[in-house]
Amino acid sequence: MKLSYYMPTKVIMGSECIVNNKDVFQELGSKAMIVTGAKSAKVNGSEQDVVTALKAVGIEYILYDKVMSNPTIECAYEGARLAKENGVNFIISIGGGSPMDAGKVIALLACQDIKEENLFSGKYENKILPMVHIPTTAGTGSEVTPFAVLTNNKAQTKMSIGTPLIFPTIAFLDAKYTKELSKTITINTAIDALSHAIEGMISNKSSELTNGLAEQSIKTITECIPSLNIGNLSMEEREKLLYASMVAGVVIAHTKTTAVHAMGYSLTYYHDIDHGRANGLLLGEFMTFTAKSEPELIRRILNAMNLNTIEDFNQILDQLLGEKETLTDEEIESYSEKCKDTGNMLNCPVRPSAKDIKHIYKASMGK
Amino acid sequence: MKLSYYMPTKVIMGSECIVNNKDVFQELGSKAMIVTGAKSAKVNGSEQDVVTALKAVGIEYILYDKVMSNPTIECAYEGARLAKENGVNFIISIGGGSPMDAGKVIALLACQDIKEENLFSGKYENKILPMVHIPTTAGTGSEVTPFAVLTNNKAQTKMSIGTPLIFPTIAFLDAKYTKELSKTITINTAIDALSHAIEGMISNKSSELTNGLAEQSIKTITECIPSLNIGNLSMEEREKLLYASMVAGVVIAHTKTTAVHAMGYSLTYYHDIDHGRANGLLLGEFMTFTAKSEPELIRRILNAMNLNTIEDFNQILDQLLGEKETLTDEEIESYSEKCKDTGNMLNCPVRPSAKDIKHIYKASMGK
Repeated sequence: MKLSYYMPTKVIMGSECIVNNKDVFQELGSKAMIVTGAKSAKVNGSEQDVVTALKAVGIEYILYDKVMSNPTIECAYEGARLAKENGVNFIISIGGGSPMDAGKVIALLACQDIKEENLFSGKYENKILPMVHIPTTAGTGSEVTPFAVLTNNKAQTKMSIGTPLIFPTIAFLDAKYTKELSKTITINTAIDALSHAIEGMISNKSSELTNGLAEQSIKTITECIPSLNIGNLSMEEREKLLYASMVAGVVIAHTKTTAVHAMGYSLTYYHDIDHGRANGLLLGEFMTFTAKSEPELIRRILNAMNLNTIEDFNQILDQLLGEKETLTDEEIESYSEKCKDTGNMLNCPVRPSAKDIKHIYKASMGK
Repeated sequence: MKLSYYMPTKVIMGSECIVNNKDVFQELGSKAMIVTGAKSAKVNGSEQDVVTALKAVGIEYILYDKVMSNPTIECAYEGARLAKENGVNFIISIGGGSPMDAGKVIALLACQDIKEENLFSGKYENKILPMVHIPTTAGTGSEVTPFAVLTNNKAQTKMSIGTPLIFPTIAFLDAKYTKELSKTITINTAIDALSHAIEGMISNKSSELTNGLAEQSIKTITECIPSLNIGNLSMEEREKLLYASMVAGVVIAHTKTTAVHAMGYSLTYYHDIDHGRANGLLLGEFMTFTAKSEPELIRRILNAMNLNTIEDFNQILDQLLGEKETLTDEEIESYSEKCKDTGNMLNCPVRPSAKDIKHIYKASMGK
């Protein structure tokens, strides 16, 4: 048995957990920068809760609410410049994966000068601002991972920074912030979490510990699928999804992701297909591919969902995804080329060939 | 759903993991103190592996191999004095619970002056030496907990220090060090781990996350029970037990322990009954007591062991424990009084009364 486990983020989950735990902000510094998008944190009340907590304990703050979906490298540098100019001591990131990932890179760049060409090198000095992460979608798990994905417009794809330095210090999980999400976003983010748990089990970096956590996450998400389909979730179900998303985040913090993520990035970059949806489109065919070499593993995943076959799995995903986008043969050719040598591919138990990848794209997308 | 999760120790498990990961010592300092008992770390090869790794990366070390079973407060102060006098930068603790717990307190006392009367106060400055923990028994889980239990001869019992400060920095788990353990110690330590997982599920500080981990630990230990009984474990089984013990440690790091531990301390202090055995003696009756108010919970625990009734559980424990020690009525009276108001009692879903505690002692021990 071989395993390595490290997840130093303190996770605090519960109704009103931010205001109820306002004292923890004081341990992080006297001036914060809130990193978020333009709108959702205002609509769902999370920004206000943070402001209330900070004021109650006398912490100053500035607001950087310019993080777009699939945040760019430029956005991270801009945020870091603002953090430095204003002498902030810690970063509070609120939102889905985009602000949470941007917040991690801002915290890093606020403490050390890293040239853009070295940003994805993995080599950094051992200093970073403390970070509080507040997920307002139940999908990315970024609040407990050492990864930040940014859009690299020069390379025309998403690229990932991975370093234990960017594990958030604290993650606050309050499911009330997910209440106002649209049915589509709720489904896409839940599929993202499911994809993390499933890819985590498939990854050749998995261990008994991560598999146990992944099964727990898969089971919990599965319980919510009927309500996801009708777009009507109870608060208890929203908590389950937020919990499962965090647990799946702990899984990929150790296992990383696989071909599904590698292949999905082009769907997001060139077709603006939401990240979770992109994973969902590819997941069934990747499981079919993996079942050829790892039938037991795929059986274990299906068991966790109480399913018998990958066809059953595809039916469930098809219902959640609705009509699928199409790709031309040229697009498939180009995206396969782009992803076939990326790091995530190395995490697959059998590495898909260019031909395999093309087949997965073709069989996954709309006809 | 409410939960709090924090376990910052980096766990590295695998055959030869110490020598294979020798570089991590370099991140901790240039001079170490090895904290261990007089004998076992020499017999099982762990001390030699540490020395080999330290020499390979040019780290100086001193040896403090005076930690006794159930280490005393005096032992921790003596170790800390030695660490300060020799200007060591980090502590490497090798052994069962005793050296691992002592090592934590030594790391704390080496960085700050704490008077003996304040040692269990929970109030410390935020500084401590980095710690590497190497368990050589599969039971205590101390390598991943924020607790250290010391024997307080003035209070005539064991007392616990609990602070996130004493989470070890790194835990190395190599099952080969458990190979030379006697059948009795192997059984007692396995029961200790089982007790942690079961008490963790019973504790009112449990969460879905810790319950999932506890179930995994219980299942894994259960798989090894036939081999424990005959005293012949394969290396794979030894790895399973070491893994399950660590996972159960992660559980109690969050849930703490319950009446079983509170009641067991007197058995250890006054009758020299091994800690794991003391827990094992009391576990079945405490489950019977808890089943009255929490039948579902006890059912879930039994399910994880593939058992139907607490009687089945008791049969398994009886076989592992062999002939039981007896207590006089006066002893039961005195130990019940001693433990009834301790902190662990507050973690029980229903707090046992003095009468309940006496009944549990009486029904648990030999007739």
